[in-house]
Amino acid sequence: MGSISDLPVMKKAAAFLDSMQIPFEMNALSAHRTPAEVESFARAAQGRGIKVIIAGAGMAAALPGVIAALTPLPVIGVPIKSTLEGRDALLSIVQMPPGIAVATVGIDAGMNAGVLATQIIALTDDGVAARYAEYRAGLSQKIVKINEELREVKFDYKTN
Amino acid sequence: MGSISDLPVMKKAAAFLDSMQIPFEMNALSAHRTPAEVESFARAAQGRGIKVIIAGAGMAAALPGVIAALTPLPVIGVPIKSTLEGRDALLSIVQMPPGIAVATVGIDAGMNAGVLATQIIALTDDGVAARYAEYRAGLSQKIVKINEELREVKFDYKTN
Amino acid sequence: MGSISDLPVMKKAAAFLDSMQIPFEMNALSAHRTPAEVESFARAAQGRGIKVIIAGAGMAAALPGVIAALTPLPVIGVPIKSTLEGRDALLSIVQMPPGIAVATVGIDAGMNAGVLATQIIALTDDGVAARYAEYRAGLSQKIVKINEELREVKFDYKTN
Amino acid sequence: MGSISDLPVMKKAAAFLDSMQIPFEMNALSAHRTPAEVESFARAAQGRGIKVIIAGAGMAAALPGVIAALTPLPVIGVPIKSTLEGRDALLSIVQMPPGIAVATVGIDAGMNAGVLATQIIALTDDGVAARYAEYRAGLSQKIVKINEELREVKFDYKTN
Amino acid sequence: MGSISDLPVMKKAAAFLDSMQIPFEMNALSAHRTPAEVESFARAAQGRGIKVIIAGAGMAAALPGVIAALTPLPVIGVPIKSTLEGRDALLSIVQMPPGIAVATVGIDAGMNAGVLATQIIALTDDGVAARYAEYRAGLSQKIVKINEELREVKFDYKTN
Amino acid sequence: MGSISDLPVMKKAAAFLDSMQIPFEMNALSAHRTPAEVESFARAAQGRGIKVIIAGAGMAAALPGVIAALTPLPVIGVPIKSTLEGRDALLSIVQMPPGIAVATVGIDAGMNAGVLATQIIALTDDGVAARYAEYRAGLSQKIVKINEELREVKFDYKTN
Amino acid sequence: MGSISDLPVMKKAAAFLDSMQIPFEMNALSAHRTPAEVESFARAAQGRGIKVIIAGAGMAAALPGVIAALTPLPVIGVPIKSTLEGRDALLSIVQMPPGIAVATVGIDAGMNAGVLATQIIALTDDGVAARYAEYRAGLSQKIVKINEELREVKFDYKTN
Amino acid sequence: MGSISDLPVMKKAAAFLDSMQIPFEMNALSAHRTPAEVESFARAAQGRGIKVIIAGAGMAAALPGVIAALTPLPVIGVPIKSTLEGRDALLSIVQMPPGIAVATVGIDAGMNAGVLATQIIALTDDGVAARYAEYRAGLSQKIVKINEELREVKFDYKTN
Repeated sequence: MGSISDLPVMKKAAAFLDSMQIPFEMNALSAHRTPAEVESFARAAQGRGIKVIIAGAGMAAALPGVIAALTPLPVIGVPIKSTLEGRDALLSIVQMPPGIAVATVGIDAGMNAGVLATQIIALTDDGVAARYAEYRAGLSQKIVKINEELREVKFDYKTN
Repeated sequence: MGSISDLPVMKKAAAFLDSMQIPFEMNALSAHRTPAEVESFARAAQGRGIKVIIAGAGMAAALPGVIAALTPLPVIGVPIKSTLEGRDALLSIVQMPPGIAVATVGIDAGMNAGVLATQIIALTDDGVAARYAEYRAGLSQKIVKINEELREVKFDYKTN
Repeated sequence: MGSISDLPVMKKAAAFLDSMQIPFEMNALSAHRTPAEVESFARAAQGRGIKVIIAGAGMAAALPGVIAALTPLPVIGVPIKSTLEGRDALLSIVQMPPGIAVATVGIDAGMNAGVLATQIIALTDDGVAARYAEYRAGLSQKIVKINEELREVKFDYKTN
Repeated sequence: MGSISDLPVMKKAAAFLDSMQIPFEMNALSAHRTPAEVESFARAAQGRGIKVIIAGAGMAAALPGVIAALTPLPVIGVPIKSTLEGRDALLSIVQMPPGIAVATVGIDAGMNAGVLATQIIALTDDGVAARYAEYRAGLSQKIVKINEELREVKFDYKTN
Repeated sequence: MGSISDLPVMKKAAAFLDSMQIPFEMNALSAHRTPAEVESFARAAQGRGIKVIIAGAGMAAALPGVIAALTPLPVIGVPIKSTLEGRDALLSIVQMPPGIAVATVGIDAGMNAGVLATQIIALTDDGVAARYAEYRAGLSQKIVKINEELREVKFDYKTN
Repeated sequence: MGSISDLPVMKKAAAFLDSMQIPFEMNALSAHRTPAEVESFARAAQGRGIKVIIAGAGMAAALPGVIAALTPLPVIGVPIKSTLEGRDALLSIVQMPPGIAVATVGIDAGMNAGVLATQIIALTDDGVAARYAEYRAGLSQKIVKINEELREVKFDYKTN
Repeated sequence: MGSISDLPVMKKAAAFLDSMQIPFEMNALSAHRTPAEVESFARAAQGRGIKVIIAGAGMAAALPGVIAALTPLPVIGVPIKSTLEGRDALLSIVQMPPGIAVATVGIDAGMNAGVLATQIIALTDDGVAARYAEYRAGLSQKIVKINEELREVKFDYKTN
Repeated sequence: MGSISDLPVMKKAAAFLDSMQIPFEMNALSAHRTPAEVESFARAAQGRGIKVIIAGAGMAAALPGVIAALTPLPVIGVPIKSTLEGRDALLSIVQMPPGIAVATVGIDAGMNAGVLATQIIALTDDGVAARYAEYRAGLSQKIVKINEELREVKFDYKTN
């Protein structure tokens, strides 16, 4: 992540990976404030056994693309809202030139970055694949409970 | 892809995969016109040995998200421009709810969908990894050639 | 609706239908989290005697279009604001491809979804038509009362 | 429609209705240039046996909402692109205040306005319902043919 | 104005007119809820000696354009923010078709609607012209006072 | 106007004024390139007997607001499209701060600027008022002719 | 700055200049309310020994461009958010016509205006250059501290 | 510049510098395709005697910000239109985080980047200052010529 203010969003990615028992590390790195550290990190990542990188950034969010330029690993980009509803970050991350790609998720969608990383890692890790399958099966259960609650809703008619 | 008009964009993904010697298949499937075929395809994909799905769609582009809802495989979404400069397709693909993710690339960025799929497959296929490394090394060579051409540029001064 | 957070908007649709004495049911269904349940619901709707379906969803709001793909019934879509002021939901719902249509109302306009469903049902139900006519006649009365209040307004002149 | 320049879009609605054997009439009416004619038309429509009104307009597209204000019939609005990619027309049509609704379709989506009108009329006309069911069954056939063509596609790899 | 929620904005127009000693009246009229009253008002306005009409509305803001269609008087439109930051109202008011114009001011700019009406009336009323000239002369005085305050400002240096 | 490229739009304003027999002059003046000339023009306008100023400009369109700051006369602003579909010009013209107003018409709506100027001048010139009334009466005639043409339209049914 | 409400943003520029020991002055000047004062200030600036001008404004933000039109000095523009998330101010400042330029920074980015002015002045002032180099060296230190804090973060897994 | 397709825009900057007799060099460098070359260039620039850097890029335009992160020199950013009308490039360049600034000019405004660089260099080079003053004096002459042409314009009245 590029700033401590990105932590609430990026923690959701971390929490999901944790729940899938996927080991990970979190780093603060800024394409604009610590370019040398970004370069060291990105160039070393594959050699250290990292499989997927999740990079979150706001505003003129160069971090995901700059990391993608420096590593062959898949890079997941999380646009973080701080100005312009996050549209600046979304466009700065998703509109990469041909040849260098960033797998972009929704604005502030830290959890989905964790989901996507999990899906990629599940291709080569049966334990992760099994835990992810279980998670998916649970998704529809929440909707079942919501439907039970909806049976209780009362309506007040007020035009405005 | 959802329509034959998406082919020019999706062919770039196919061409990149082909250059990386990654086997693939192309299908026309529409979340809105052939929902049953989408479901059959998505539910069967993992069992048939598919590793990654690339889904391109325009306008209210539901296809990538609907496929992602039906398979545990990573799904790459390509927003295709037909109206509103492709912003409708971009938002329809990238703004997924928590729990189901689509790895979105830029508008009409078929080639980058191929790049991203290659990066994911390279995690488990050394031949693909080697060919992708070679491709990346070649990217800077093109810039070298452009710099040689720039030495020849002449300037005409005309204010307007 | 796709999520319990959509309830405040969708209750307005329900309240309006209730005031028109049109029977209805509310369900939570998600195109991305419970695709199988969406399919069962949509395919069975006409056979169960349902006349119109109102589907509300936010973000990459695939639900209304996916239901429209699976039933010949008219489907009314309600874009629900959760990110980007609801523009993502609006475009995801209204920009359907040729052949499958969604009757889209304004952002968070649950009440107008109820109004539109009422207008469609009124074509074949004289009781509903009468109650709706009475509702319409009442609309201008509210404006009359506002005009009376406006007579009392005082003005403070402060430039800024 | 509000202007002769809207005809290419509105003809698609007419052509679809024609194919469904639904009788219809076409009128040019402008909320801004012929307000009196709009009013006569809208107030008389229900009495003349009209079931659904399709109104297309561009820019500050007041026509669909103004007609909806003057008739209890369902009104389908077609935003027509002439400036700002049609976003002005889309917002002018879809963002109706609570109490008066317009069933909005996509930008320039004349055909889908015809589809939606057909779905509403099919609720009370078994012939129309049967013809519409046949149309829907045919939609997936086109995709089958596209898939056959895709089998023949060749790929040229060119990065750019 | 179209709704009582528009009052805080429209009161600023009224307050400015009041300060210029220009007589005025305020009415609630809705193009969508009270079309008949809008028509009566607009058709009668010139005959009653009204010189300028200020119409404020939000969302699919048809009111200014509809009034402009029914009177030869100049109509000033005030886009009122309720959704989408007021962009829907702005486009619904300013993007009029050729032949019928609305003099549009900024979003929620009720005061400037009063200013503009004053400028038009000043063309034929020397008293108003004199009072408006005095108001204009006072505008720069406020800036003088701000500059005095700026002399006192202290700076804390904190990067973030 | 700020540039010769604005002429096609501004000629429509001129043509309308000409048709109403309202005398006018056209000047090229740029808030950014000829600020001194803008100032001379704006400060002298009222004294020379000018009643209304129409100012068209594109991009960061400061001209209408800058003129409005220098004259008590009503200023009509025409946003001219050259980049970003004219949205930059529209916002630069319409979003004036409280106290100085510009009567903004639609993007490239030169003709409506002429219409609005005519409506203002008609308040004090009976000849202009009569010619404008005649123009308005003619507007509905064009629609009558369009309706006759619509009777001849044939429909080809082609889904796409 | 154009208004006292711009002070919180513009103070950040002042604070940064102060920390770099660059002398400066702050003035309130409005292109729309005090055009004569803007002109005097801009025309006199170079002669008074000023090197760089920072101009902040919101809405139809004409101030930076108008000053740039009246001085050969570099002008830095700060778009200030008050409506439309600051997009109106951004476009009004950055989209200058060819020939007159404004060096635009981000929305509400007062501090970066100070940084940019510092970089320009550092070209001819070794003391400023040294202090700015020290500031830049300190930027990466903050990230080091954030990384230490990140080591302590705990994760709670909660899907939503 | 990041790509040869940026050349038509960037040549305008070069042509302006050439007309001011300011020596310059042009390089193709891509933050995403040649990150190592970008770093070498940016880190060496100040030592080689470069005073100002102009960086143009399109889409997710990281180049100007990445260069600004690696040099204390002022960096001028030119957003280049290739998708989304250049809004993606504009936001990717202008919305820099606090501490690292880019002096952004308008979309495709290569010439104004040259103007801004000239203004900065003129602070320390009297010859450049003199040539730039001459250029500015010439700007108003073009408007004089346009005004002469406007005297000849004829008007055709055609409503549409």
